[in-house]
Amino acid sequence: MHLFYAPDLVKDDFLLPEEESRHCSKVLRLKEGDLLALVDGKGTLYSGHLSKIESKRCKVFITGEDKEFGRRPYSIHIAMAPTKNLDRTEWFVEKATEVGIQEISFIQCHRSERKQINPERLKKIAISAMKQSKKAYLPIINEITPFSAFLDTTRAEKTFIAHLEEHNQQSLREVFIKNDAYCVLIGPEGDFTPGEINLAYAKGIKPVTLGPSRLRTETAALVACHILHVLNEVLT
Amino acid sequence: MHLFYAPDLVKDDFLLPEEESRHCSKVLRLKEGDLLALVDGKGTLYSGHLSKIESKRCKVFITGEDKEFGRRPYSIHIAMAPTKNLDRTEWFVEKATEVGIQEISFIQCHRSERKQINPERLKKIAISAMKQSKKAYLPIINEITPFSAFLDTTRAEKTFIAHLEEHNQQSLREVFIKNDAYCVLIGPEGDFTPGEINLAYAKGIKPVTLGPSRLRTETAALVACHILHVLNEVLT
Repeated sequence: MHLFYAPDLVKDDFLLPEEESRHCSKVLRLKEGDLLALVDGKGTLYSGHLSKIESKRCKVFITGEDKEFGRRPYSIHIAMAPTKNLDRTEWFVEKATEVGIQEISFIQCHRSERKQINPERLKKIAISAMKQSKKAYLPIINEITPFSAFLDTTRAEKTFIAHLEEHNQQSLREVFIKNDAYCVLIGPEGDFTPGEINLAYAKGIKPVTLGPSRLRTETAALVACHILHVLNEVLT
Repeated sequence: MHLFYAPDLVKDDFLLPEEESRHCSKVLRLKEGDLLALVDGKGTLYSGHLSKIESKRCKVFITGEDKEFGRRPYSIHIAMAPTKNLDRTEWFVEKATEVGIQEISFIQCHRSERKQINPERLKKIAISAMKQSKKAYLPIINEITPFSAFLDTTRAEKTFIAHLEEHNQQSLREVFIKNDAYCVLIGPEGDFTPGEINLAYAKGIKPVTLGPSRLRTETAALVACHILHVLNEVLT
């Protein structure tokens, strides 16, 4: 069944957004009565059928509503330095959305070669991945923020910095608390600077290691996200 | 320190291969006496310094030899249908090599849109990822094989098929045995056919689920690989 994204559904008037209406009527050539599903990106999965087709306004008759669809009792926030090669950051956004993530932030670090991102473009990638993986929650994707400003917004006791310097880091497993809200900081190619690491420590943020492999920025970001999923599933 | 790949090192005559020699002399412009490291892709990490520089033949004086570098007490083999978009398969090879994998096979399935791969190109990607993530083992990358022929080569009791049909699959965690040699079969876009699934069952291969998310082929392949790493690290 086709799945559409409709973030601003108004009760009793279930219109698909313009772009989704066009996709529905022109590309997929669906007909009145065809079954479909909608997600609002805020946790609700609707099922229904097409009740009216216009090229820019397709209307849906809703027959089922599944709130908090696929909701997990924990949340994952990854704050990463964007990669020099933007493809790698886009890839992370796609894969993390498929695997499941609540929030993605971008931090501007001293050694970041890339200072800008396009959150709208990344949001489109996340929407596509959300639909592809049949999820009802769209991750929040934030604008890029200077590293120190980001630290002021995060709760230190739930935030971890994954850096590569030798500081006797614990593994994510050792600091893990089940069903919590986690934030993991992932540095740029070339890693966080000692100054950035000390700034994080001064805020009470603890260092973690993601395992023995030296990972690229975007791989580390996905691995951190996925470790937290597996630990929540496996550990009691 | 720069890391080079030298698969055919002959004791007492440590020459870099032609391509690596060129990289060393022309791109990096290293000098005699510069420290470097070598991996042979078979588990040994060497350290040493450049003793002679020629554009196609750089010679290394070895001062340290670290056998079975980063060896893990288990091995992971992923056999996946190649994706329609080859980038996605290449991406998997890179990421799996970074995270750690022993063997990658490609299976030709009924619903595979792609019937060919280029193992040499994939091997280059794996070499680059091995060096980037400072590993001494290069994964084995096999030619594409018809699904049924592949099943004849695999040990059923250690092989799992991750398909999307509803068959009361167990999670990888439930079938998991620590420090074993695992093989996970990942189907094409559109999944394995019921016939392929039954063929695997007839061989004694068990179905597994990779979790609640509907994942793309290449994401499922990486997630399977990474779950096995985390389980081996976390479970006793």
